Amino acid sequence: MPELRRDPITGEWVIIAGERAKRPKDFASHLPADEPEHDSTCPFCPGNEGMTPPEVLAFRHPGSERDSTGWWVRVVPNKYPALAVEGDLNKAGLGMYDWMNGVGAHEVIIESPDHDRQLAHLDARQIEDVLWAYRARYLDLKKDPRLKYILIFRNHGRVAGASLTHPHSQLVATPMVPGEVAAELAGAKRYEGYRDRCVYCDILRQETNEGSRLVGENGSFIAFEPYASKFPFETWLLPKRHCASFAAIAAEEQSDFAEVLADTLRRVDACLLDPPYNYMIHTAPCDSDDRQDFHWHLEIFPRLTIAAGFEMGTGIYINVTPPEMAAECLREASLGAAAPVEQEGVTLGDSDR
Amino acid sequence: MPELRRDPITGEWVIIAGERAKRPKDFASHLPADEPEHDSTCPFCPGNEGMTPPEVLAFRHPGSERDSTGWWVRVVPNKYPALAVEGDLNKAGLGMYDWMNGVGAHEVIIESPDHDRQLAHLDARQIEDVLWAYRARYLDLKKDPRLKYILIFRNHGRVAGASLTHPHSQLVATPMVPGEVAAELAGAKRYEGYRDRCVYCDILRQETNEGSRLVGENGSFIAFEPYASKFPFETWLLPKRHCASFAAIAAEEQSDFAEVLADTLRRVDACLLDPPYNYMIHTAPCDSDDRQDFHWHLEIFPRLTIAAGFEMGTGIYINVTPPEMAAECLREASLGAAAPVEQEGVTLGDSDR
Repeated sequence: MPELRRDPITGEWVIIAGERAKRPKDFASHLPADEPEHDSTCPFCPGNEGMTPPEVLAFRHPGSERDSTGWWVRVVPNKYPALAVEGDLNKAGLGMYDWMNGVGAHEVIIESPDHDRQLAHLDARQIEDVLWAYRARYLDLKKDPRLKYILIFRNHGRVAGASLTHPHSQLVATPMVPGEVAAELAGAKRYEGYRDRCVYCDILRQETNEGSRLVGENGSFIAFEPYASKFPFETWLLPKRHCASFAAIAAEEQSDFAEVLADTLRRVDACLLDPPYNYMIHTAPCDSDDRQDFHWHLEIFPRLTIAAGFEMGTGIYINVTPPEMAAECLREASLGAAAPVEQEGVTLGDSDR
Repeated sequence: MPELRRDPITGEWVIIAGERAKRPKDFASHLPADEPEHDSTCPFCPGNEGMTPPEVLAFRHPGSERDSTGWWVRVVPNKYPALAVEGDLNKAGLGMYDWMNGVGAHEVIIESPDHDRQLAHLDARQIEDVLWAYRARYLDLKKDPRLKYILIFRNHGRVAGASLTHPHSQLVATPMVPGEVAAELAGAKRYEGYRDRCVYCDILRQETNEGSRLVGENGSFIAFEPYASKFPFETWLLPKRHCASFAAIAAEEQSDFAEVLADTLRRVDACLLDPPYNYMIHTAPCDSDDRQDFHWHLEIFPRLTIAAGFEMGTGIYINVTPPEMAAECLREASLGAAAPVEQEGVTLGDSDR
């Protein structure tokens, strides 16, 4: 008999179809395409800085010039932004309908100069610098009073919506708190109102105690498969310290964040052979860093199945891999040693943070 | 500048990215695979009735036997149901988490004996009989007090989640009102509470008056692109008579429903070359046929783009085809004459309805 599990935050139900449970080998394998180390037509490759809008942030070797080579992390506005940074909202009604200008921000975080090296396989310090770039751009955009929410996310693989292969993350800032975020906040508030505890802190305790859905742990984070996982191999990274905003991360937590992110992505890679995936940082809206009922975290969704009419019509997902089985596969994954990025003569200073 | 449009029912915002608007030719074409008229390995083809669980409904030629050939519409339980029809819910808590048995129903409506003839290209009477089968199964399952909601939907094409090519629809009955449905109902109730009018009746009036998003119309229905369409070529079929439940459809409305559904799907086919799509009937929960604030309808979502990290993290969709442009393309689509299904010696009686 399939079982129904309820997400303790949003209250959404998920169908766990354990009877025909799918193990990693049952999913189509997604062997990585053979990409060159450098692609002269790629706008994110070194030497092609002129193909993107001017950079808004770069971690650069001393002496290198803006919008030229010499960077190891580079952030640029999206050339085709979903939301545009100039202009006013000009809210208006059109008969019964509501309208506003698409004001916001849309940036690309280019994670390394290497065209073919995935985030999971960069060295620890480089991953940490990507996360520092996330935070620097978050803090800068948070100053703009038109922007109410900032989402940082990553699309990996064509099936997960990545149109360029050069490893990159994205940031979109919106002029309202988006519906999904509002629903998550409302659910967390409802739980806190009833129990006087943070729902994520409770999840942290229960998952650490039970262990069956844990994938990994270090000083500052746990990685686990949520009880009501919507997707096969859905994995969350949850900081141990209660904090509503990603931007309030401390330096020692940031290196643990980089470590647990790399370790988890490598396990996902090893189990599922480089599957397409999306990850998103769930953080509090810009104006509510201090809320007691929310707890920032990162959610990874491998894209192994298709949401069809049932999921679109109900919001109920059918998950064909019970999270306990997924956690076991990920814990047992055999990881090769990560090859370090070659960065000859680089001084990785803190100056640009 | 992109624009933000708000769904008047749910309150969700959608980004309409009109500057690089995509016309039909900009989407990958999905030419139909060459399927045979009959496939001896297909569980939905005549002669293979033994490959499915026993039928729960069939419209049959007089004298033909249950679970044998001689039907023109056949409904069977899904062999691998998302929810199982036997058993009790046995609701339970597991620490902080909520659990219940996956009780419900999951049925397949086989739309015709022809393996290779798509719903849109069946003759009008056959499509109407598919819709009568939807209604008959809806009314039968509604009697089961464990079931709170019944979703009827159709997945067409592999990208839209169809794993078998023989044309079929599905029905899933759930033991709770699903989250997406609850959100839609709550939005409709909010609107009605503020204006004392049904939001869908208001949409019907505004779309009929403006005309720029209309695709088609007959005596009982309009077909239109919603103002805040989430997807390129998203199309809704909305009955002109206010009614919360699909099951309360009248006989003359049913033939108009079949006509507008066939006409719309043929236009979608002609514009986008047989794209993958999902459609879902949005109807009231089982216990609230009479609610004044809800209005049943059918939503068609062509699957031309990929929901990625931004959509998953925010619930805000980026639609690259403004609905006014999509409506114009669909209105102007040139439709070939539909080839009638050959049904020699068939008596299409009302006896099985």
